[in-house]
Amino acid sequence: MNARLELSSESVVESAAGLLEELRAEPPLVHCITNSVVTGFTANVLLALGASPAMVDITGEAGMFAAISSGLLVNLGTPTPEQRSASLEAVGGARTAGTPWVLDPVAVGALPVRTALAQDLLALRPTVIRGNASEILALAGVSQGGRGVDALDSTEAAADAARDLARRTGGAVAVSGPADLLVDTDCELRLANGDALLTRVTGGGCALGAVMAAFLGTARRTGASPLLAASAATLVYTLAAEDAAARAAGPGSFAVGLLDALSAVEPGQIAARARVETGVAA
Amino acid sequence: MNARLELSSESVVESAAGLLEELRAEPPLVHCITNSVVTGFTANVLLALGASPAMVDITGEAGMFAAISSGLLVNLGTPTPEQRSASLEAVGGARTAGTPWVLDPVAVGALPVRTALAQDLLALRPTVIRGNASEILALAGVSQGGRGVDALDSTEAAADAARDLARRTGGAVAVSGPADLLVDTDCELRLANGDALLTRVTGGGCALGAVMAAFLGTARRTGASPLLAASAATLVYTLAAEDAAARAAGPGSFAVGLLDALSAVEPGQIAARARVETGVAA
Amino acid sequence: MNARLELSSESVVESAAGLLEELRAEPPLVHCITNSVVTGFTANVLLALGASPAMVDITGEAGMFAAISSGLLVNLGTPTPEQRSASLEAVGGARTAGTPWVLDPVAVGALPVRTALAQDLLALRPTVIRGNASEILALAGVSQGGRGVDALDSTEAAADAARDLARRTGGAVAVSGPADLLVDTDCELRLANGDALLTRVTGGGCALGAVMAAFLGTARRTGASPLLAASAATLVYTLAAEDAAARAAGPGSFAVGLLDALSAVEPGQIAARARVETGVAA
Repeated sequence: MNARLELSSESVVESAAGLLEELRAEPPLVHCITNSVVTGFTANVLLALGASPAMVDITGEAGMFAAISSGLLVNLGTPTPEQRSASLEAVGGARTAGTPWVLDPVAVGALPVRTALAQDLLALRPTVIRGNASEILALAGVSQGGRGVDALDSTEAAADAARDLARRTGGAVAVSGPADLLVDTDCELRLANGDALLTRVTGGGCALGAVMAAFLGTARRTGASPLLAASAATLVYTLAAEDAAARAAGPGSFAVGLLDALSAVEPGQIAARARVETGVAA
Repeated sequence: MNARLELSSESVVESAAGLLEELRAEPPLVHCITNSVVTGFTANVLLALGASPAMVDITGEAGMFAAISSGLLVNLGTPTPEQRSASLEAVGGARTAGTPWVLDPVAVGALPVRTALAQDLLALRPTVIRGNASEILALAGVSQGGRGVDALDSTEAAADAARDLARRTGGAVAVSGPADLLVDTDCELRLANGDALLTRVTGGGCALGAVMAAFLGTARRTGASPLLAASAATLVYTLAAEDAAARAAGPGSFAVGLLDALSAVEPGQIAARARVETGVAA
Repeated sequence: MNARLELSSESVVESAAGLLEELRAEPPLVHCITNSVVTGFTANVLLALGASPAMVDITGEAGMFAAISSGLLVNLGTPTPEQRSASLEAVGGARTAGTPWVLDPVAVGALPVRTALAQDLLALRPTVIRGNASEILALAGVSQGGRGVDALDSTEAAADAARDLARRTGGAVAVSGPADLLVDTDCELRLANGDALLTRVTGGGCALGAVMAAFLGTARRTGASPLLAASAATLVYTLAAEDAAARAAGPGSFAVGLLDALSAVEPGQIAARARVETGVAA
C-alpha cells in the first residue's frame, strides 16, 4: 500500500476516456441510497451519462440489491431511520459481493445522527469518500464541519485529512472544490475543470458521488483503480458542466444543460480539455 | 367479461380525444403514492396535462383521500414501511368509494419486500396495471423480474403474462416498451408512438402511470373502459414525447419539453398522429 | 401590537430592495422541512435566489439545526411520522434561539393528521403563515379546507381568517392567490405581481414559503418586520415569475426560467414593477 507510484496526467486522461467508453458499452447498475432533495436529479445524471440508476433504500432489499449492483452510493443528506438501517445493510451486501461503494458524508460534523453513522460507515472502508473540504475535515475528526452543506474550508486545507482518510480506508478520497483534490495511498491528483454554477444547483456535488459509483462499477470490470475511476467521473462531470455553463442563462438552464451535456461528452474530448496535475502521495 | 368485442383504431383515437377534452374541462384529482425519485416530475406531468396531483402517502390520511380522489396511483419504486401501510389503506379507501386505481409494480421480482406487497395489491384487483415487460412477467409469476427498473424482456414476451393478469383482475394491463401493449379480457391494442428518450429520463414510465390514473378518473365520469382510459393516457403522453424529442438537445431539455408539450397536446391532433393496432384478446 | 401604522407602497418596495441586497451579500442558511414532492425545486429556488438551503428533517438533528439557521420552513405537504416529530423539534429549537419560522399548512382541513399537527404548530406562533385561501380558512377553523392542494376559495374570502391568525400568532399571514394578501396586526398589503403558470408547476407555492424563510433570516439581521420580509419574498418571487413567463413555452420551460430569473432579479428593478396596495389592518 505504501509504494509511491507516480501517475502521469496522460495516463489519467487516457484511463478516463477508456472508462467512459466502457461505461457506455455496458451500462453499470448504480445502487443509490441518497437524500430526498436530489434523488431525481441524481437519477437523471446517471441516465444522461449512460448508466442505469436504481434507488433501493429500504431494509430487506438494500443488502441483496447492493450485491448484484455494479456500484453503490451511500449519501447521508437526509438519513431517515429506515435509510440509516438500509445503508448499513447495503454496505454489508456490497462488501460480501465485492461491490465498490462511495460514501458521501453530507454535512457531517455538527449534526450528530449522521456523524455517528458516517463513523460507522468509515470503519467499513468505503472504496471512495467524496465530500467538500468541511465534510472531509469533519469526517477525519479534525474539525466540527461546516454549516449545512456549504464548505467553509479550502480544498487544500483538507488535504491532510483526505490523506489520513485514504490511509485508514485503503481507498480513494475526493475533495470537491474550485479545483478537486483526489488522493489515495499512492498518488494525488488535482482536477481543475468545472464551473461555479455547480454550486448553484442542488445535488451538484451529490450527483458527482453517484457518477463515481458508476465509474467504480466499470473500473471493477476493467481493473482500473478507485482513484482513476473517481478521476474519470470528475473529469466527465466537470467537462459537461463547462459545456452547460457556456450555454446557460442561469442555474435553471444550467442544470438542464448539464444533463444534455453529460449525454454528449465523448471519450475523445477529454484529453484536450482536461486540466490535471499529478503527484505522489504526501 | 368474456365477450370478444373488437375495438377499432378509430374508436380508440376518438375516445382518447374525447377523454382529453373532458379531462381539461374538469381536472381530475389524482392521488399519487409514488417513489421518492419521481414525485416532483410526476406532479409536474399531471399539472402540465391539466390534472390536479396530490401526494398523500401517510397512514391516517391515505384511505380517506383515495375515497374523494378521481383516481389513485400506487407505485412501488421506493416503498418505505409507512408507504406500504398507506398504500394498502389507500386501496381500501379506493375500493370502498369506487375510485379507479393503477398499480405500477416497479422492480418486482428479485426484491422481496415490494414483491410481497405487489402480490397483496394484485389480489385487490387494480383497475390498471402498468409496468415494463420484466415487471409484468414477474408480477404474473412467470419470471424473476429484471435488474432494478430496466426491462430485460420484450413487450411481446410479456403478452401472455399481461393477458393472465387481466383475467385475474378483470382490469386492463399495459406493458410499456418501444411499442406499448394494452390488454383487457376483451381486447388488445398496440400503440407505437413515443421516443427512446423516455427511457433516458427518470420517471418516464412512472409518470405515465399517474397519467393513466388521471384518465381513469375522467373515464369513470364518462363511462369509458379502463382500457380506453389507459390508451388515451398512453397516446397523449407518447405524442407529447414525440413533440419534445423533436426539439430536444438531450435528455435534460427533453424532460422540460415533455412538460411543455403535454400542456399543448390538443384532442384534435390525436387521430392524425396515433399509431394504433387493435385486435381481440388472445 | 394594536397600533395602526400605515405602511406606504414606497416603503414596502424600498424595504424589499434593501432586503434582497442584504440577502445576496450575506446568504441566509435556510432550514427546510418540506414535502417530498418539492424538495429539489425548493432547494434550487433558494440557491437561485442567493440563499443557502439545508433539509434537516430527522429527530436528533432538526432542533439543533434550527437553532443555528437563519430561518426555518415547516411545510406539511407529506408529513411522515419522522417529519412530524422533527418539525416539532425544529420549532422548539427555533423558538429557543429566536430563529424566525414559516408554517405552510398544505392541504389542512380535511386531512386529519396534518390538521392536528398544524394546530399544534399554530399554538407555537409561527413568524409567518403562508397558504392558499382554502388552507388559511381551514387553519383558522372557518372551513374544512379544499381538496388536496387546490384553493377553492378566493383570497379575499380568507381575509378575515388571515387577520384572525395574525392576531393569534402576533406574526404575519400571507394568502397566496392571483393577488397575494399579506397581513399582520397592524397593516395589510395586496401584491398583484406573478403569473398563472406558478399554479402549473409543483412547488410554485411551497417554494415561496422557503423564500419567505430566507428573507425572514435577513430581516432578523436588519430589523425589518416579518410582514416586510414576507412582502419582499413575494415581490422578488413573483417578479421572477413574470420574467420567466414572458420567455416560457409552457410549464416545463417556465420552471427552468423561474430559477434563471430568480438569480437575475436585481434590487433596482423592484420599485418600477411592483404592484402594491397598502392599508391598515381591518
